[in-house]
Amino acid sequence: MSSTAGQVIKCRAAVAWEAGEPLVIEEVDVAPPKAMEVRVRILYTSLCHTDVYFWEAKGQNPVFPRIFGHEAGGIVESVGEGVTDLAPGDHVLPVFTGECKECAHCKSAESNMCDLLRINTDRGVMLSDGQSRFSINGKPVYHFLGTSTFSEYTVIHVGCLAKINPLAPLDKVCVVSCGLSTGFGATVNVAKPPKGATVAVFGLGAVGLAAAEGARVSGASRIIGVDLNPNRFEQAKKFGVTEFVNPADYDRPVQEVIAEMTNGGVDRSIECTGNINAMISAFECVHDGWGVAVLVGVPHKDAVFKTHPVNFLNERTLKGTFFGNYKPRTDIPGVVEKYMNKELELEKFITHSLPFSEINKAFEYMLKGESLRCIIRMDDLRIHTSGARSVLLNKL
Amino acid sequence: MSSTAGQVIKCRAAVAWEAGEPLVIEEVDVAPPKAMEVRVRILYTSLCHTDVYFWEAKGQNPVFPRIFGHEAGGIVESVGEGVTDLAPGDHVLPVFTGECKECAHCKSAESNMCDLLRINTDRGVMLSDGQSRFSINGKPVYHFLGTSTFSEYTVIHVGCLAKINPLAPLDKVCVVSCGLSTGFGATVNVAKPPKGATVAVFGLGAVGLAAAEGARVSGASRIIGVDLNPNRFEQAKKFGVTEFVNPADYDRPVQEVIAEMTNGGVDRSIECTGNINAMISAFECVHDGWGVAVLVGVPHKDAVFKTHPVNFLNERTLKGTFFGNYKPRTDIPGVVEKYMNKELELEKFITHSLPFSEINKAFEYMLKGESLRCIIRMDDLRIHTSGARSVLLNKL
Repeated sequence: MSSTAGQVIKCRAAVAWEAGEPLVIEEVDVAPPKAMEVRVRILYTSLCHTDVYFWEAKGQNPVFPRIFGHEAGGIVESVGEGVTDLAPGDHVLPVFTGECKECAHCKSAESNMCDLLRINTDRGVMLSDGQSRFSINGKPVYHFLGTSTFSEYTVIHVGCLAKINPLAPLDKVCVVSCGLSTGFGATVNVAKPPKGATVAVFGLGAVGLAAAEGARVSGASRIIGVDLNPNRFEQAKKFGVTEFVNPADYDRPVQEVIAEMTNGGVDRSIECTGNINAMISAFECVHDGWGVAVLVGVPHKDAVFKTHPVNFLNERTLKGTFFGNYKPRTDIPGVVEKYMNKELELEKFITHSLPFSEINKAFEYMLKGESLRCIIRMDDLRIHTSGARSVLLNKL
Repeated sequence: MSSTAGQVIKCRAAVAWEAGEPLVIEEVDVAPPKAMEVRVRILYTSLCHTDVYFWEAKGQNPVFPRIFGHEAGGIVESVGEGVTDLAPGDHVLPVFTGECKECAHCKSAESNMCDLLRINTDRGVMLSDGQSRFSINGKPVYHFLGTSTFSEYTVIHVGCLAKINPLAPLDKVCVVSCGLSTGFGATVNVAKPPKGATVAVFGLGAVGLAAAEGARVSGASRIIGVDLNPNRFEQAKKFGVTEFVNPADYDRPVQEVIAEMTNGGVDRSIECTGNINAMISAFECVHDGWGVAVLVGVPHKDAVFKTHPVNFLNERTLKGTFFGNYKPRTDIPGVVEKYMNKELELEKFITHSLPFSEINKAFEYMLKGESLRCIIRMDDLRIHTSGARSVLLNKL
């Protein structure tokens, strides 16, 4: 057991004090884990659109001060009472949604929407006691998605941690903890294109490219990328995208364009933008008789999906997915193994890397659309060092 | 070969001269079958809502005079050039949609929406030459759905005929040719409820009760029937329906009522009314994580399906089906075998029986909601007999 177990750890965290304002690296107190909780030392984290969305806090309940971050890789520092699946030293990926292994969803082979640990974007505290484990001068700093990985140490429910192969490089496989699995799983677990299928992917950000990677791995014959930004096509080719459609180039609905390109429609489509019109197009562009469309992108809360019901009656299927239908603890270690076995390429998703002290640049890269994934190195002390922190790191 | 092969047959048919007007039993000429066509002696036919809908011809292109009817059982009289799968004497069920066995849909394991022979409600002529095979005094009388079974003899494309076990009683298995298969297949082929599942069925007419029968046969633990007519519940119990919900009894959406009854939603739902609000309720009443809703009922042409896309993202699936996803020639003989093996009960669908001469009464029963299926006995000469016809029947 580490010598810090049971004690408050002082460490650096990037705190969002207000919506849309640059994060500030602060020294925070991280309380020990309570029952069914685990304290994790984060080594690498990356930035996902969901962090940016809730940091901007437009039209949501603002929960501040808050520590964002949910895509990461780390090592267990200590475990709370009742935790038997994990021990200090284990390599883990935090996941923004959990798997209690007890509820109807966890017991269903078809669902990963755990009743206990399902994503909750409003909650800024731990489930067990409604308290935060983070504080500055005794005042709480709130959690985000139960993960808060923009901190050198964080406390996470054991159900939100996937124990992975300790040989897997955390600076690469950290991207498996959210975006990669969301897109890749949408294709391989939900859309399930047969070999030789035609596949359309709406939105060529990291999640959409992960969906394309899933189609490539599945042996799709054509992968049609749809995006309003033509600059994304060159990059998308690395992910197996064979053709590109920019809806802005046409004066008719993009579903009609795709149907013409594919003799009636694609076999599968995956929608990764969250834009309601893209969702409708993604559904209506699949072939009648057998086409399956999968929704991944999160829509605006007032969005309404509309279509003529005959589009369904002509034997099209529409499904949604959440985290690529992966059960975090049961399935995510296997995704990491796919990378280890070279079935899955992760390097091409990682376009940038920064020391923790420069985390705000990662927000800039994403807002400008320059990055897919920017890895933030938590142990890179290049600029700012706190004395307390150095002591702690030496102790581990 | 029958002595009538290659000749025009004079026989009785129930002709719809005008929209909504009672059918008139007329003597019609039925031309011999051309290439890939089969002339069939109809022994039993039944009335389906689709006949009534196009007979009423509200908001459609009226095609009159026309011979309706598409749910039937008969015996092959003669075959046209190129027909090798069927021979005179074979027992067949006509189907309103076909299977050419050559197109992309027929070659797909997932689809039954044949490109060549897909349902076409506007066409009143044969595919090969754009002509009708029916005439009165040399003037054409139009076909309906390529079947026109309200005639003692009819001409049908070979791709729209399922060859069945000659031991099967045609006065029972004729109902397999449309409504029974549409509902039963929607459950067993598309919704696929696992044993013990909870299932909601919207609309307790013949198709909905066939869907319930599919759920019963699949081992569903609860079958919730939804209908605005409370008189239907007693009858529905025979089809395995265990609970009844009348949307008119509640001041909140029926999907909320069903979710409360089932701890979050049913595992499967099947919509058999075609009403757009029922479609939305059927989708929204399935459980998140694994629920599958299947649309069967044909909607109004201007209907719009609307829902919040988060209902999909929470891992619900919405599919449509057409003729229960059965391929007519490949699969329907197997449904008849299920009846022969006592896995499927057909008798309970048959509430009425009439001689052909009283066919208009079958329309009355259906319009009043009194019947599920009314079998029309084509060879029952009780009231009207034409001399020409008696001669022909004696010849066969």
